[in-house]
Amino acid sequence: MTYDDVTWPTIYSRSVTLDASGVHILDRRVFPFEVAFVTCETHEDVARAIERMVTQSNGPFYAAGAGMVLAARHAETRVAPERRAAFMDAAAARLIATRPTNNNVGDAVRAAAQGLDAGAGGFADRVEAQVRAAWQARRDALRRVGGNAAGLIPDGASVLTHCWSEGALIETLAALLVAGKDAALWCTETRPYLQGARLTSHSAAEMGIPATVITDGMVADAMRQGKVSLFMTAADRVTMSGHVINKVGTLTGAIAARHFGLPYYATVLMPDAAAGTPADVEMEQRDGNEVLHCLGHRTASPLARGWYPAFDITPPELVTKIVTRDGVHDPGALIAR
Amino acid sequence: MTYDDVTWPTIYSRSVTLDASGVHILDRRVFPFEVAFVTCETHEDVARAIERMVTQSNGPFYAAGAGMVLAARHAETRVAPERRAAFMDAAAARLIATRPTNNNVGDAVRAAAQGLDAGAGGFADRVEAQVRAAWQARRDALRRVGGNAAGLIPDGASVLTHCWSEGALIETLAALLVAGKDAALWCTETRPYLQGARLTSHSAAEMGIPATVITDGMVADAMRQGKVSLFMTAADRVTMSGHVINKVGTLTGAIAARHFGLPYYATVLMPDAAAGTPADVEMEQRDGNEVLHCLGHRTASPLARGWYPAFDITPPELVTKIVTRDGVHDPGALIAR
Repeated sequence: MTYDDVTWPTIYSRSVTLDASGVHILDRRVFPFEVAFVTCETHEDVARAIERMVTQSNGPFYAAGAGMVLAARHAETRVAPERRAAFMDAAAARLIATRPTNNNVGDAVRAAAQGLDAGAGGFADRVEAQVRAAWQARRDALRRVGGNAAGLIPDGASVLTHCWSEGALIETLAALLVAGKDAALWCTETRPYLQGARLTSHSAAEMGIPATVITDGMVADAMRQGKVSLFMTAADRVTMSGHVINKVGTLTGAIAARHFGLPYYATVLMPDAAAGTPADVEMEQRDGNEVLHCLGHRTASPLARGWYPAFDITPPELVTKIVTRDGVHDPGALIAR
Repeated sequence: MTYDDVTWPTIYSRSVTLDASGVHILDRRVFPFEVAFVTCETHEDVARAIERMVTQSNGPFYAAGAGMVLAARHAETRVAPERRAAFMDAAAARLIATRPTNNNVGDAVRAAAQGLDAGAGGFADRVEAQVRAAWQARRDALRRVGGNAAGLIPDGASVLTHCWSEGALIETLAALLVAGKDAALWCTETRPYLQGARLTSHSAAEMGIPATVITDGMVADAMRQGKVSLFMTAADRVTMSGHVINKVGTLTGAIAARHFGLPYYATVLMPDAAAGTPADVEMEQRDGNEVLHCLGHRTASPLARGWYPAFDITPPELVTKIVTRDGVHDPGALIAR
């Protein structure tokens, strides 16, 4: 099998689409039960869609870039040239503010801003060309991450993952298929938004890899019973100190993996050179009310309060390897590279 | 405050009611959103209600005893005297088969059978008197468990628990109140049936103790952030080897507690003298399809499979103390008592 033969999952191939009518974002809150799109006509629409979790994981990177194109289209026709830069700065700030912990959005917005100053074609076309180039570069980098991660995974392995690792996971599974390795995927359901149950399991199964869903509390027992060979997640951020910042629950899995002597691999395009330690990263604390619901239905007592730290921090001593686009690294060695 | 001043939670005071019309079981699948009862007219109705998770935790103990009373009422009027013992044996076997891992049901059924042979009054009345005496003895024993557990919990502690520990937890919280200690409860939601989100948080709040719900994956981060002082659960079974068999997810919490240097206390009326090690306990494996739903709604991809080990096993080296009706024990010392 070659990469051309891989069945690419719906959510990876149709996540964010940009055309003349606007931006169409696959609504991950209802996928895979429905294949629905939220159409955005302005960058503010995009920002709100990101805040409302219409898309997440790598989705905000693509959506925010597309949001900058919408802002550029507006600026080109409706904003005086001398005020255009300020308008674009404000749009960028608005999009960056949507998800403070994950710097995918910042990357996307910075890439778009690189097209502002000069070049052939109209202003919006130049921004769009920059954004599309950034998208392709991201996909190419994820292909390298996936190849590096697959190299760590033996034939016949059962991989436990948490939440939805998007491109890094899809490209890892694709690389396993291309290498002719058998694999099975175990997914935590990842409450409260069920990304594992809905997105991860579905996408692996679309690729032909069997996917088993467990509740978030079952990670240790799955390991105890020998159901999984290793734990692997993506990372929203890896600091130069080797700390992995990822969807809350990752730390629970990493501690359990260490207890049972299983490796924990974290994938990321590259560590964040601007973040020396977790103290340099703003950790998003979401509304505790969100953990008291599931798919819009109240799950908890009306007398209960909720607590929802969106991300947790796994220290380098619990991380076996950090897998990036340029290789496989010991978490304690990032700073020395 | 005295025990008479405690506000006893709805689910503890109205769990199973036996009257002339039958057995009324509080439906824990919908509580606390609805206060509804499943009425059972035969022991077979009771068995099906237990299998369908209408009640759980200590509920099956009370329900199965009541089911034996219904069987005795039937036997007294409709079964020939020489076939009555066989009928009652079959009823007992049917009720015991509902939940193979938790021996509460076996205890209840054995207690009822002690009334079969002789005594004043009708056959069914004798069985009922035995059952009600067993219920009162259980409540008295739980009072002692709660007192012993509360002695381990410092003033101002924040207790993390998993699933729904019923009498042991309620009596522990009551003992804290009676002792004048401040306490807060943190509860995992406990997927797939949400016992923590629905039952545990509600009951603590009814008693005036603030209750915070987290997803099952957040246990490690709650500990990392210093939100909880200790981990405490009930146990469906404690073997003489000191292994704790409890709702799946307990092991995950115990491993995390050990990682962060927090104590893990398991409460149980008494260890199971008939179970030397976990090999002596039949572990219930439930339908994996159950983890793919929440409150009746599909949560997972239609392409996913599920896996649902109802219980896990926490080894004695991860258990700080076993709290029973007769005291506080080192898990490794049970066999020597």
